[in-house]
Amino acid sequence: MSASAYQKLEQRFRRILILGDAEEALQWDYATMMPAGGGPGRGEQLAELSGVCHGLLSATETGDLLGEAAACDNLNDWQSANLKAMQRKWAHATALPEDLVVAFSKASTACESVWRTARAENDFAAVLPHMEALLALVRERAMAKSEKLGLSLYDALLDEFEPGGRSADIDVRFAELEVFLPGFLNQVLEKQKTNPAPAMPGGPFAADKQHQLGLQLMTALGFDFNHGRLDVSLHPFCGGTPDDVRLTTRFDEVDFSSAIMGVLHETGHGLYERGLPADWRYQPVGQALGMATHESQSLLIEMQMSRSRGFLEFAAPLMRAAFDGSGPAWDAENLYRNLTRVEPGFIRVDADEVTYPLHVIARYRLEKLMIAGDLPLADLPAAWNAEIQSLLGITPPNDREGCLQDIHWYDGAWGYFPTYTLGALMAAQLFAAARQDAPEISAGIANGDFKPLSLWLVKNVHSLGSSLSAEKMLEQATGRGLDASAFMRHLKTRYLA
Amino acid sequence: MSASAYQKLEQRFRRILILGDAEEALQWDYATMMPAGGGPGRGEQLAELSGVCHGLLSATETGDLLGEAAACDNLNDWQSANLKAMQRKWAHATALPEDLVVAFSKASTACESVWRTARAENDFAAVLPHMEALLALVRERAMAKSEKLGLSLYDALLDEFEPGGRSADIDVRFAELEVFLPGFLNQVLEKQKTNPAPAMPGGPFAADKQHQLGLQLMTALGFDFNHGRLDVSLHPFCGGTPDDVRLTTRFDEVDFSSAIMGVLHETGHGLYERGLPADWRYQPVGQALGMATHESQSLLIEMQMSRSRGFLEFAAPLMRAAFDGSGPAWDAENLYRNLTRVEPGFIRVDADEVTYPLHVIARYRLEKLMIAGDLPLADLPAAWNAEIQSLLGITPPNDREGCLQDIHWYDGAWGYFPTYTLGALMAAQLFAAARQDAPEISAGIANGDFKPLSLWLVKNVHSLGSSLSAEKMLEQATGRGLDASAFMRHLKTRYLA
Repeated sequence: MSASAYQKLEQRFRRILILGDAEEALQWDYATMMPAGGGPGRGEQLAELSGVCHGLLSATETGDLLGEAAACDNLNDWQSANLKAMQRKWAHATALPEDLVVAFSKASTACESVWRTARAENDFAAVLPHMEALLALVRERAMAKSEKLGLSLYDALLDEFEPGGRSADIDVRFAELEVFLPGFLNQVLEKQKTNPAPAMPGGPFAADKQHQLGLQLMTALGFDFNHGRLDVSLHPFCGGTPDDVRLTTRFDEVDFSSAIMGVLHETGHGLYERGLPADWRYQPVGQALGMATHESQSLLIEMQMSRSRGFLEFAAPLMRAAFDGSGPAWDAENLYRNLTRVEPGFIRVDADEVTYPLHVIARYRLEKLMIAGDLPLADLPAAWNAEIQSLLGITPPNDREGCLQDIHWYDGAWGYFPTYTLGALMAAQLFAAARQDAPEISAGIANGDFKPLSLWLVKNVHSLGSSLSAEKMLEQATGRGLDASAFMRHLKTRYLA
Repeated sequence: MSASAYQKLEQRFRRILILGDAEEALQWDYATMMPAGGGPGRGEQLAELSGVCHGLLSATETGDLLGEAAACDNLNDWQSANLKAMQRKWAHATALPEDLVVAFSKASTACESVWRTARAENDFAAVLPHMEALLALVRERAMAKSEKLGLSLYDALLDEFEPGGRSADIDVRFAELEVFLPGFLNQVLEKQKTNPAPAMPGGPFAADKQHQLGLQLMTALGFDFNHGRLDVSLHPFCGGTPDDVRLTTRFDEVDFSSAIMGVLHETGHGLYERGLPADWRYQPVGQALGMATHESQSLLIEMQMSRSRGFLEFAAPLMRAAFDGSGPAWDAENLYRNLTRVEPGFIRVDADEVTYPLHVIARYRLEKLMIAGDLPLADLPAAWNAEIQSLLGITPPNDREGCLQDIHWYDGAWGYFPTYTLGALMAAQLFAAARQDAPEISAGIANGDFKPLSLWLVKNVHSLGSSLSAEKMLEQATGRGLDASAFMRHLKTRYLA
């Protein structure tokens, strides 16, 4: 009886996740191929699809089956984890009344659209009323989810992006960084002054050559083009499905490294998706863990590995050849110094790995206040600038380079920011453990042999899907839960040694 | 009460057709962008989507609402036509028991897959048992639909592709062609002998230049790239949706005209889709009429217009410029002679417009016999060759160039072939009427001004959607129902004058 309830749930979630894959494919097309005039129609398609999925997920029958299956005592570990992941999805889907879902979606769209102009025109006042309306709904949402899930307001939102993520844990991890980073940053900047300024390889760098180099590096890393593609979009992303991974990038003809590092970043995401357990393809337990783990995989490849001396010994000759470059600017050591340059700046997405967490901490502090109702939005610009001054030692000259820069809050994504830095900590901890476990990983990287690394990642992270929590996965892979120590050790080694 | 049933049906069909648009987008991606390894997953996505649509369409509630709405007497003409189109879709969807749908789908996939090898290896015997199994299911299907729709076996299948199409009408139209074409073909071949053989412009023709030329001609014809694209696929098609029309072509570096004529053909389909009534976008009455009308729009552009002296006066200089050509081979008159060359051959898709209907008539005769159970499949190769010999005066040297050449029967598409030639007749009749109605059309074509033609087509064909039957639409646009006279007049003028 109960086993059959579980089987019925597997069938139902299979259908939901396959339709979700269809949505992914349509989103990719929207960002890469679709002519602008197709927008409204695509919006209708995505809305109907997500309506069908939401209907299947939140149906009374789903709740009944979950109740029945919970009583079942003969599920194996993966099935139990699958059931738990189903319950979580169902709880999130049914926490909100229909009218709040609709109101939130409309307010997000409206606010994001006004924000685009407001950012371009450096006009926070223009977006303020829309942001206030949206935040009111964000808080309603947080309260409804808080009640259903038994979590604090902030955690109820965070849990959407990071299953099991809790702000109490984040506070502990970020506290170490807040103490460590500002002083460390000063040391790095001092030390950097004593180094010769790295030369920039001379451009322009043709887009098609950058594209070819990207494909070459993806291939070396084991990206399977029988199950994926690389295309161009305004905002790079990793989309598609585990069997059809769609990466995107964009090309800057003045600086090839932004596209190439972007490709390597997305390749990290893509390898994770591709390495998910095929036996559980269309079940919640077969999906990636939250955004923090996903970001750990992209940052492990981009930040930990690709900006290392070892990797650049392998990659520098390929980069030089790709652009017919010559001269010392193309030496591995010079490229390394370019790619590990530290410089406090106003814009998060341009930040190096030393200052990036400070941007995230500022946003995390601010969004906790706003969600709690303790920071009126009219005061946000001043509060933002104060945080950045306190953490990075610089003050944004305007809101465009301040609190207007990121889409997240204006698009309704509250509780998302900390996952970037959790991912960075996780990446450092996993990469250190991997190299200790399998010494051939480091040698392989310098020789362009990425098999040892990818085998380790598949075994310890990718193939586990969501069968363990992120915390348990980390404990099993690295011998301890998440903390900031590996990340801080990594920074000291790379920037002060 | 009844009006509300109709409103509910509109909502239900809106959802079904929007999900159908999502399917279209995924099919396009499958044919143009998807890496091979994405195939099984895409199959799952398409199957789930069509399952959801089928569920919505065949639900008891849909039948109940249709019954209720039928009693409603305050619907306007478009609403009535919409209701009728809904009823037809519902009748087709509910005519077949679920197990027959599944068995048919599996048998089609199996037979098509064996056919691919059998065709390559010229081995009809290999595919024979699969074709027999499939035909048995085709006949079951025809019987089930015949009962539900009150049509003959053949018409029950034809009606899927051509709503309202009846073999009794086709027999009359094809009878004229069967009498006229063989003798006419001989006259054309005799006359052709007296003409100088046209020179072939010298290649190779780079794919990207062909692509540019294609875009240029599409733009001239009024194709709106804010609502569409041109890409490459193995088998050219027009896909997507009216607001996001996705055309494809393929490039032959030896002969640019095949790709360019293909692009013009698909542009005809695309303009039709784009011109459908936006007010009825997601309703059955807003959709294109059947395959015959669709083919009439592509053949009107490709065969009637683009292979005319007038069009080539405009296009020849563009073609020459696209490939930096020079010499008399690029003269409009020479290109015209190349593009109107008649030559009996074995392969339908390579046939000129004089011999093409003979290929279709042969297939139509044979499939009627097979569906009626009067031609054992073991006898098909011999029967095929006899038909081709009798109609075209040549005998296929093998089955690869004979009964194995087309995918249709092996893929389960029975009752489709006649729509090609119905489309050709319709194209001739519409084009003649258009030029008579609006004399500026002919002058416009020679000057590269296609507005007058497209205005006429939008008004008389595209914007009507399915509000009238194909026959009524033709009567309104041309003053009479479909017959072969305009087509035969066109052939005589083009090939004997």
